[in-house]
Amino acid sequence: MAAMGLERRVKVAEVALRCMVCALAALAAALVGTGSQTRTFFSLEKEARFTDMKALVLLVAAHGAAAVYSLLQLVRCAAAAAFMSAASQSGGGAAAVAWSVFSCDQAVAYVLMAATAAALQSSVVGKRGQPELQWMPICGLYGAFCRRVGEGLASAVAAGLAAVLLAAVSAFNLFRLYGGGRKSSAVAGNGAATW
Amino acid sequence: MAAMGLERRVKVAEVALRCMVCALAALAAALVGTGSQTRTFFSLEKEARFTDMKALVLLVAAHGAAAVYSLLQLVRCAAAAAFMSAASQSGGGAAAVAWSVFSCDQAVAYVLMAATAAALQSSVVGKRGQPELQWMPICGLYGAFCRRVGEGLASAVAAGLAAVLLAAVSAFNLFRLYGGGRKSSAVAGNGAATW
Repeated sequence: MAAMGLERRVKVAEVALRCMVCALAALAAALVGTGSQTRTFFSLEKEARFTDMKALVLLVAAHGAAAVYSLLQLVRCAAAAAFMSAASQSGGGAAAVAWSVFSCDQAVAYVLMAATAAALQSSVVGKRGQPELQWMPICGLYGAFCRRVGEGLASAVAAGLAAVLLAAVSAFNLFRLYGGGRKSSAVAGNGAATW
Repeated sequence: MAAMGLERRVKVAEVALRCMVCALAALAAALVGTGSQTRTFFSLEKEARFTDMKALVLLVAAHGAAAVYSLLQLVRCAAAAAFMSAASQSGGGAAAVAWSVFSCDQAVAYVLMAATAAALQSSVVGKRGQPELQWMPICGLYGAFCRRVGEGLASAVAAGLAAVLLAAVSAFNLFRLYGGGRKSSAVAGNGAATW
């Protein structure tokens, strides 16, 4: 009974986290990807867009891909819930599915964190400049664009954190299958009680 | 017997990965942290050091900390191996240790990946410049320093990949404790055979 409760709570947490990753990653990609600001300097028009900074292009691509992937995973979760009684009893298939979900979720978490870190780094240089290298800040010129990117980055960080938690949940779903040693049942009982 | 073989192989992989993370992270921090190049422009002396670029400071700090952490973990592994017969049978303590090791290893993997991504981003801008923002490349001036940082970054990427694998191993060590459901023993048999 306690084990069933744990399993159900993990399932709910997984679906909730996948929804969060999908929504936040899509929001981050949309905020950064659609932002632009045009300014006129002495009759010369210049437009700031995310394509001016390679790290922001990477951010939009990574978060867009993560949003699509999370959507596909949600469809898979729904399908698994619909056909649970028929499919979940075949052990080998479950392990293969858990391995592939685990690998993809880990990859998504690391890619989102790396893309977010690179974009944050670029944005800090854009905001403060790097005077030792004569790289000047640009947010004084394109304030509205910088604010937009900042909002997108906040959303990207939140999506990354959700993806990290999700990677831990899918690791739990996979490696739990390799338990069943002599100590495991006592500890599992412990864990379910303190969960 | 098969389960013991799996456990032993996981232990060996863990120690090997910790050694790799420790050595590669220390190498990366040392290569980037000690590199410097002085050039004279019209009787004005300028020195390039890693402190000129915030992302490299972060890289040195993160990889230095990861190397020290890995060394401490290796000591813990050695201590655990020495006192295995006495300590490993108490289930609750094992779960607490596995939880803390898992959390720290995950944090190290994400921090190393994020720091490496930020430093790579900075270095690409340093190498190629970002002409849209009037940020000029600096590797033409400080070629030897740039090569040194490049070697450090290669080592940092390798350390990050080892830390990712290590995070998966410690997830395995933790979540295996929560197995012991009705399906798990069949799958565990499967998994050990194909491992």
